[in-house]
Amino acid sequence: MTTREILEQLQAGTIDLESALSELQGFEDLGHSRVDLAREARNGAPEVIYGEGKTSEQIREIMQSMAKREQNTLVTRLDTENAKALCQTFPDADYCPQARVLTRILAKPVPATTQVALVCAGTSDLPVAEEARLTLEFYGNPVATVYDAGVAGLHRLLASVETIRACRVVIVVAGMEGALPSVVGGLVDAPVIAVPTSVGYGSSFEGLSALLGMLNSCASGLSVVNIDNGFGAGFLANRINRL
Amino acid sequence: MTTREILEQLQAGTIDLESALSELQGFEDLGHSRVDLAREARNGAPEVIYGEGKTSEQIREIMQSMAKREQNTLVTRLDTENAKALCQTFPDADYCPQARVLTRILAKPVPATTQVALVCAGTSDLPVAEEARLTLEFYGNPVATVYDAGVAGLHRLLASVETIRACRVVIVVAGMEGALPSVVGGLVDAPVIAVPTSVGYGSSFEGLSALLGMLNSCASGLSVVNIDNGFGAGFLANRINRL
Amino acid sequence: MTTREILEQLQAGTIDLESALSELQGFEDLGHSRVDLAREARNGAPEVIYGEGKTSEQIREIMQSMAKREQNTLVTRLDTENAKALCQTFPDADYCPQARVLTRILAKPVPATTQVALVCAGTSDLPVAEEARLTLEFYGNPVATVYDAGVAGLHRLLASVETIRACRVVIVVAGMEGALPSVVGGLVDAPVIAVPTSVGYGSSFEGLSALLGMLNSCASGLSVVNIDNGFGAGFLANRINRL
Amino acid sequence: MTTREILEQLQAGTIDLESALSELQGFEDLGHSRVDLAREARNGAPEVIYGEGKTSEQIREIMQSMAKREQNTLVTRLDTENAKALCQTFPDADYCPQARVLTRILAKPVPATTQVALVCAGTSDLPVAEEARLTLEFYGNPVATVYDAGVAGLHRLLASVETIRACRVVIVVAGMEGALPSVVGGLVDAPVIAVPTSVGYGSSFEGLSALLGMLNSCASGLSVVNIDNGFGAGFLANRINRL
Amino acid sequence: MTTREILEQLQAGTIDLESALSELQGFEDLGHSRVDLAREARNGAPEVIYGEGKTSEQIREIMQSMAKREQNTLVTRLDTENAKALCQTFPDADYCPQARVLTRILAKPVPATTQVALVCAGTSDLPVAEEARLTLEFYGNPVATVYDAGVAGLHRLLASVETIRACRVVIVVAGMEGALPSVVGGLVDAPVIAVPTSVGYGSSFEGLSALLGMLNSCASGLSVVNIDNGFGAGFLANRINRL
Amino acid sequence: MTTREILEQLQAGTIDLESALSELQGFEDLGHSRVDLAREARNGAPEVIYGEGKTSEQIREIMQSMAKREQNTLVTRLDTENAKALCQTFPDADYCPQARVLTRILAKPVPATTQVALVCAGTSDLPVAEEARLTLEFYGNPVATVYDAGVAGLHRLLASVETIRACRVVIVVAGMEGALPSVVGGLVDAPVIAVPTSVGYGSSFEGLSALLGMLNSCASGLSVVNIDNGFGAGFLANRINRL
Amino acid sequence: MTTREILEQLQAGTIDLESALSELQGFEDLGHSRVDLAREARNGAPEVIYGEGKTSEQIREIMQSMAKREQNTLVTRLDTENAKALCQTFPDADYCPQARVLTRILAKPVPATTQVALVCAGTSDLPVAEEARLTLEFYGNPVATVYDAGVAGLHRLLASVETIRACRVVIVVAGMEGALPSVVGGLVDAPVIAVPTSVGYGSSFEGLSALLGMLNSCASGLSVVNIDNGFGAGFLANRINRL
Amino acid sequence: MTTREILEQLQAGTIDLESALSELQGFEDLGHSRVDLAREARNGAPEVIYGEGKTSEQIREIMQSMAKREQNTLVTRLDTENAKALCQTFPDADYCPQARVLTRILAKPVPATTQVALVCAGTSDLPVAEEARLTLEFYGNPVATVYDAGVAGLHRLLASVETIRACRVVIVVAGMEGALPSVVGGLVDAPVIAVPTSVGYGSSFEGLSALLGMLNSCASGLSVVNIDNGFGAGFLANRINRL
Repeated sequence: MTTREILEQLQAGTIDLESALSELQGFEDLGHSRVDLAREARNGAPEVIYGEGKTSEQIREIMQSMAKREQNTLVTRLDTENAKALCQTFPDADYCPQARVLTRILAKPVPATTQVALVCAGTSDLPVAEEARLTLEFYGNPVATVYDAGVAGLHRLLASVETIRACRVVIVVAGMEGALPSVVGGLVDAPVIAVPTSVGYGSSFEGLSALLGMLNSCASGLSVVNIDNGFGAGFLANRINRL
Repeated sequence: MTTREILEQLQAGTIDLESALSELQGFEDLGHSRVDLAREARNGAPEVIYGEGKTSEQIREIMQSMAKREQNTLVTRLDTENAKALCQTFPDADYCPQARVLTRILAKPVPATTQVALVCAGTSDLPVAEEARLTLEFYGNPVATVYDAGVAGLHRLLASVETIRACRVVIVVAGMEGALPSVVGGLVDAPVIAVPTSVGYGSSFEGLSALLGMLNSCASGLSVVNIDNGFGAGFLANRINRL
Repeated sequence: MTTREILEQLQAGTIDLESALSELQGFEDLGHSRVDLAREARNGAPEVIYGEGKTSEQIREIMQSMAKREQNTLVTRLDTENAKALCQTFPDADYCPQARVLTRILAKPVPATTQVALVCAGTSDLPVAEEARLTLEFYGNPVATVYDAGVAGLHRLLASVETIRACRVVIVVAGMEGALPSVVGGLVDAPVIAVPTSVGYGSSFEGLSALLGMLNSCASGLSVVNIDNGFGAGFLANRINRL
Repeated sequence: MTTREILEQLQAGTIDLESALSELQGFEDLGHSRVDLAREARNGAPEVIYGEGKTSEQIREIMQSMAKREQNTLVTRLDTENAKALCQTFPDADYCPQARVLTRILAKPVPATTQVALVCAGTSDLPVAEEARLTLEFYGNPVATVYDAGVAGLHRLLASVETIRACRVVIVVAGMEGALPSVVGGLVDAPVIAVPTSVGYGSSFEGLSALLGMLNSCASGLSVVNIDNGFGAGFLANRINRL
Repeated sequence: MTTREILEQLQAGTIDLESALSELQGFEDLGHSRVDLAREARNGAPEVIYGEGKTSEQIREIMQSMAKREQNTLVTRLDTENAKALCQTFPDADYCPQARVLTRILAKPVPATTQVALVCAGTSDLPVAEEARLTLEFYGNPVATVYDAGVAGLHRLLASVETIRACRVVIVVAGMEGALPSVVGGLVDAPVIAVPTSVGYGSSFEGLSALLGMLNSCASGLSVVNIDNGFGAGFLANRINRL
Repeated sequence: MTTREILEQLQAGTIDLESALSELQGFEDLGHSRVDLAREARNGAPEVIYGEGKTSEQIREIMQSMAKREQNTLVTRLDTENAKALCQTFPDADYCPQARVLTRILAKPVPATTQVALVCAGTSDLPVAEEARLTLEFYGNPVATVYDAGVAGLHRLLASVETIRACRVVIVVAGMEGALPSVVGGLVDAPVIAVPTSVGYGSSFEGLSALLGMLNSCASGLSVVNIDNGFGAGFLANRINRL
Repeated sequence: MTTREILEQLQAGTIDLESALSELQGFEDLGHSRVDLAREARNGAPEVIYGEGKTSEQIREIMQSMAKREQNTLVTRLDTENAKALCQTFPDADYCPQARVLTRILAKPVPATTQVALVCAGTSDLPVAEEARLTLEFYGNPVATVYDAGVAGLHRLLASVETIRACRVVIVVAGMEGALPSVVGGLVDAPVIAVPTSVGYGSSFEGLSALLGMLNSCASGLSVVNIDNGFGAGFLANRINRL
Repeated sequence: MTTREILEQLQAGTIDLESALSELQGFEDLGHSRVDLAREARNGAPEVIYGEGKTSEQIREIMQSMAKREQNTLVTRLDTENAKALCQTFPDADYCPQARVLTRILAKPVPATTQVALVCAGTSDLPVAEEARLTLEFYGNPVATVYDAGVAGLHRLLASVETIRACRVVIVVAGMEGALPSVVGGLVDAPVIAVPTSVGYGSSFEGLSALLGMLNSCASGLSVVNIDNGFGAGFLANRINRL
């Protein structure tokens, strides 16, 4: 809303004084949280709720604040117990336990016209890959998944190269040594977003080995997000896919 | 107490021989703990009890030793189970489970005349911020809180700049990349105490990323305490606020 | 060249047998190096020469191999001594000692129609920022630079927000705590590529603090490349800018 | 200067158009640097120049920009060669090679009425301690130094306890295990700023051991700045001393 | 037993063939463990059983093998569940849950004539200190304990300096910044064994800060054992005390 | 199967169209997993299932896919609960809880004619050693085990040197300081595969100390696999033993 | 030499008393070094001299001690200056400055009948690869080199797969993300020895990223040696190739 | 000197007022250094000068202060240039460039009656071993050296076991994997002091691997000093040897 619109609505009585104040300053202050009402205008998408370390009560209030403005809600890293409590308040919300993601769609997103490729190295990386997939679909992107295509059996990847090349952006999810993004990066001319996962043991050090591998990739056109950050990759891929 | 006072009280029979000995050597020896009776004289505040790794029995005895000298008690990092046991012995004690802090006030502290600003980056940082707040109030400081004002939505911070500038000291609590203290540090001329939190995942490495970020801040006038050490920040802020 | 074209040229005698063989297998084998002749077809740009750890003789031979195919050459991380030797062989090459980059343009790139923003936090980060700028220009992108806009003086950044928002992609270069990308990320809706630098001292640990800060950014739509990797950021930004 | 003052000076012809523009936007843009003209208003002190990674030419231009506004200049981490070049341009500047600090005083600072204690553990820590001392004096603080008072010979410290207790703020500089701040912190009721140094060898890991020691101090009322950051400690101590 | 003694016992029928073979090769092979029968001869004390990662069944068999040779048994890092199972088999064994140590004395050790000082920094370090104390007493050393004498209140330590100086060896146990051994080391002329503990939080990194602090001590005459290794310190102190 | 064989079987109706497609492309796509059917042809052994992070349902489907091709199955790092579920489906499978390994043998492997030595340092290393042993036996190798032969009692190792020397390959499993592979490496002329374990505490940092020790071994002819990777060592030893 | 042979030679006067003593105890004591004369008998190859940290005088004496026994000499990590001094004493020695290896052949090794494949990822890895090659040839192994076959251009590797598959052992040398061994490991059934190099910058942390990548490889049949340890890989490959 | 002696000497005029003051407070304050005059009384040996980071002028003044009290001087980690300057002032001083140690003996130490064993793993560890040897001899201890006895050739160590067993204390110096102390620790019943060195490359990480190896030793009766700290080991060994 522009400043003029806010004031007109106040005059018309469609919003109350508190709401007008929040809108003018760009956030609603809930005490524990300052819900960023201006984010969509600035960043192209409303705030996303990081679920870890928040109580279900806090998340509920943030979701209610956003719902007042008809914003779709995405909550990441939400454990099962909190999800259950929230789904009782918002029965139209969807929760995916594997990805620990809750979404609530109030207005369908405009579908993107180009696809995003989502490649992952092993079956054990699925929770992170699914977080990326749900994020991409939340923002209306068609996704082409190529799962379990790790470098130990290259033909599994090569069989899907044309699928990947047909996409505008590529996300590659991998744990252990994190070699897959380098190999994919050498085969395509689209931007590649690499997501290290904490899958592995011993000297994988909770994803450090995959992270370092991806940062030091010999392939160009590739960048990296945080360990297990499927959401971050999906959000960025949507942004690039929408250019 | 001065040496003369101790001896006079012994003569008068208001303290016993053991207590006189403890006072003269500056601590009471409980076997498992040497309660520092001289700390208030030296450091301006009585000992604070670090609750982790101590049994409720040990904490109880320390609290009783301090109570004999009419000292207010602050116990940090106390889990719920031990807190419950202690509250049975000391029904006038207050326990905050979010901050894991127990306080017992026997004598109201002299209120400070200037305020401390307490800024935190995200809702998930609240447990650490609340530990700082309870510590500040334990020592009698008025606190101005600005919660959930992280740098991803700068206007949420800028809306409160005047509040912060009106304070004599500023505490900034942040996890993840720990960027908020640098931004706040660039906006004020008061000393800034930065508190990294273990909030984040993947390559935050339990607060290491926020800690390093704050230590390497490009803003001047800023110093750092241990990860999640809300108490330490509150204690130091009180000390500066009282100058 | 397609297979048919290669064979026709061989028949026509415009290439010799060795060249035809190299083209068919997609690389020329120099013994020490296998120059990737198919990279442009696969990745949209010819191979880039990583100068570190190579002798000037090795680089010269790679450049000659690429020149035979009329490819523009970009050499990164090239020290002054090797640069001097190469400039004697290729007098039409340009060397920038600050960025340690050598470029040789045989065919002007098609200019891009949209701009890339290049923001950097401090004057000491310029060598990395300039490596990114030269890379962007090598591929034909107009660049809008905003240098020395670190978070300790936010107004220096805010003064250029419109310039940045007018670009299709944003590169942010920062050392020390690496907070700038988070702040920029909160202000724009374009993809942000963060480049940590090794600028800083003490606990910056050669860029580790900036790297961790960026990976853990609370802003969305942001990804990270290797420490001091100005080239990588420029290459990726070109790729996104060309979508 | 207030906006009115700037415009009046422009009208009066005492400043030119470019300068007026710079003043209004709060910085002067030198291309490589944006000199923060508003910092003194915001932070209580003008910008300080971080010398590392800058050319003497860049530093000279920044110093000239500041001199136009009659600001005192402090350059830290400046190597001997650059210092020499700058002293030729500014013969009234002072350079201390041990501390690698250059100062240029155009207007004497108002002297502070209370002292800062500056304690250091060993003779090898002097370069860092001296950087702190020069910073403190640059801002007009009287300094009481207690050098080489490490914990291996406690009486060397205890002999100066009264000197330290008479100060309003205490800086403690130490390398190796960094134990001195904890011991000092147990003896005073002033705020203590701990500065780890990179002095030590083997598992000191360039100051990491001292840094961790100080962050984990069992003494309260203590905070930490970056390894070898004598300037940061001096700047903060001045700020607290001026409260 | 010497080889001659073994053969004589075999002849006399006081040991069977299997035992004679074990004695001659210096160990008894239980399949999962090779019990080192020659260790006492070589190292002055029989094998000690590291309890972690072993089943109670495995430990029982090792204890039975040692009992056949009338050796006292010390089991470290034994959890409560396994301890319970073992105490049913060996009702004469003693288990200390705080220190997680089980001892079984079949023959009283010869008491040492000189004392070992055991100093610890905080009450939370007691489990490690008690492991050291039980080890020392297992080998017959009188122990002088000085508990909770951390450097934040030096007088608590100084009050016991004469007690410590009267001992032949000193063990110092500390967590957090691990400063206590340096201070003690500066006050005595006996060998000091420093034991870092995992007590602390945030950047103590499970004892790493204390470990590094102790390794980099500015006091001479001090050496370090593994984090939380109370047993190792006690064993070494016994060895030195017996010289 | 060769391409011709696949097509003939399709014609003969012994396989259906889907299977023929899978065989031709070298993998069967289960959605969550791409089972690598060509691995045996390329690598000499069928795929091994990494159990961690997979559901029992996913593992079951992979096992069924492999069973269709009469392949023996090895599942590593499988927890007890998933193992139980799988053993109900495949009653002919064997599960070893200590090693967390499940095997299902459909066709006996051809026995190797030479032995592999499997040495381990302590009883607590047995789970890793047993994972190696089960892997070796899964592939048909006779194994000579020498358990609990750590360097603190060298004679326990020296007593078995001839056993070890009689083998074609040697695996050495050790935690803590990981010194055993160096000592064994100095005594034999066979290839030595070193396996660090996470056994130890304090500064062993979950196996890092053993890993670094082995990588820096002063003995030649030795290489290292991941921490706790008994499977990897067994697989490689089989490969070398079969040369 | 057997004990009998030593004594017979002493009797015959072909060796002197000192030499006989050295032979009997298995080493010659030069004061600074104990040259291991028994290593060839135990390990199948004489001692190799690690050149770093030794003076040319020390190396000369070791070489002379070995020459007395007609042993070929291999010196690794030898700098140019020391090499020059040694080549004056031993004009028949060969020094390769790129690999920093000096060899002196007194007796031609028996040539191996099977080949070793030596694959390396980039031209900058050549010094390490060449150290491996010289070691392999020192022990008489034919080597098939495939240089600059990194994963960013897979066809460069795939073009040489048949060459690699024809070898009995494979060495793969790579820096940066160290992905090449995983890819090669997925294509062959021979043992693969992975050598991480310190090539890379920023977060490669001197080879740590490549090391971790290789240790966590998803391909089986692969093991790892120390960073830049071309010699170690060559030595082990020879041992396996000779089985 | 006792207080009485100091005052008597002042009265007698054998010392001046400044010296009397220094003696009474236990140190002489040189401005840059507080020379600890009471250390010998407290710790059994006068202060030792750590040469790194000190100017030759500073060291000279400390040495002169000590010479006034007839104290022998030991300077460690002194580079060649400073040593040269000091030897001109003190022609009776001895400098060993390999160990970087300068000693000046004014009064011969009382010789110890028992020996210290000094074992080192490789020739490249000699500089650290020699620092230990010079320290031991400075304090009057006879030293039995066993150099280059690393675990890759155990017989070189076993040949000297009796020599080592005849000593009262054992120092073991080793780089790389640091396995030697564990092996020696398993063979003797004397206290073992382990010294890790920075010898090694790649993942030795400047001595970290050896340090961790020694801290996690499976042998008991062993403790560790800082990386390359030959002096610390020598000092402690002297202290134990003198008990």
